[in-house]
Amino acid sequence: MTTHYTAKKIIIITEKIILDKVTEIIDNAGATGYTVTNAGGKGSRGIRSNERNSMTDTYANVKIEVITSEALANDIAGKVAKKYFENYSGITYMEDVEILRPAKFKV
Amino acid sequence: MTTHYTAKKIIIITEKIILDKVTEIIDNAGATGYTVTNAGGKGSRGIRSNERNSMTDTYANVKIEVITSEALANDIAGKVAKKYFENYSGITYMEDVEILRPAKFKV
Amino acid sequence: MTTHYTAKKIIIITEKIILDKVTEIIDNAGATGYTVTNAGGKGSRGIRSNERNSMTDTYANVKIEVITSEALANDIAGKVAKKYFENYSGITYMEDVEILRPAKFKV
Repeated sequence: MTTHYTAKKIIIITEKIILDKVTEIIDNAGATGYTVTNAGGKGSRGIRSNERNSMTDTYANVKIEVITSEALANDIAGKVAKKYFENYSGITYMEDVEILRPAKFKV
Repeated sequence: MTTHYTAKKIIIITEKIILDKVTEIIDNAGATGYTVTNAGGKGSRGIRSNERNSMTDTYANVKIEVITSEALANDIAGKVAKKYFENYSGITYMEDVEILRPAKFKV
Repeated sequence: MTTHYTAKKIIIITEKIILDKVTEIIDNAGATGYTVTNAGGKGSRGIRSNERNSMTDTYANVKIEVITSEALANDIAGKVAKKYFENYSGITYMEDVEILRPAKFKV
């Protein structure tokens, strides 16, 4: 038996050198956890492209995932973009997820 | 030309040391495959936090993704949580996905 | 303040040795960027299983993610499968995502 409840997953893909600063924003916003994966990639005009960070075939990026509420997702996305996305490349997007939890687990 | 059909993606984020046991449950449940990524992160109260596994900035976690049916996703989530999530940190959630397959491909 | 707009995320999981060829298709199709993560896993009959590529517990795969329109996602999926998925293992699927962008950002 599992109980289901819906939540949002916010995904931030940005440069690894600001990982600690981004996770600090996530922590301070009140999220209860996050997952980090190393990533490479290639940016687009205005989003992840600047001279310092032409990312093809390198793994200088990170993908940070946070399961949270929509309000908190918006709060985190706004703060991260405002503080860092003028000087660092990054993109933030959100997905609907359904948490699966055994019925006996406390939420 | 591609044909589309909907499916569920179940995502299990847990400690790397139980990866083989979790994938054994996935195999035995009848799933036809899975994808594994190394991950780090930070847990939350009751979910991924215990003294052994304070995960910030380490990559001692794995993210396991399985494309499957909703019934199988529930079965896998229940078994993994029942067997391992009292002693190991982990979270399981589900997303809707749309498989893209060339029309000539056999399903 | 963030503005939201919906998009598709196409995910291609395939063998690392064709990464450059797949990203060339993505670039040529007109996508503005992509993210690459190393991945392992296990394939299924007809999808990611062939003798050369029994992928359990190895990290010889890549997960390529592209945020794009549904039309472009279909175009990319069709071309990749047609050119490579007879000889290489791979799966392609699509998810709905909601891009979060500060109101002042140009799209």
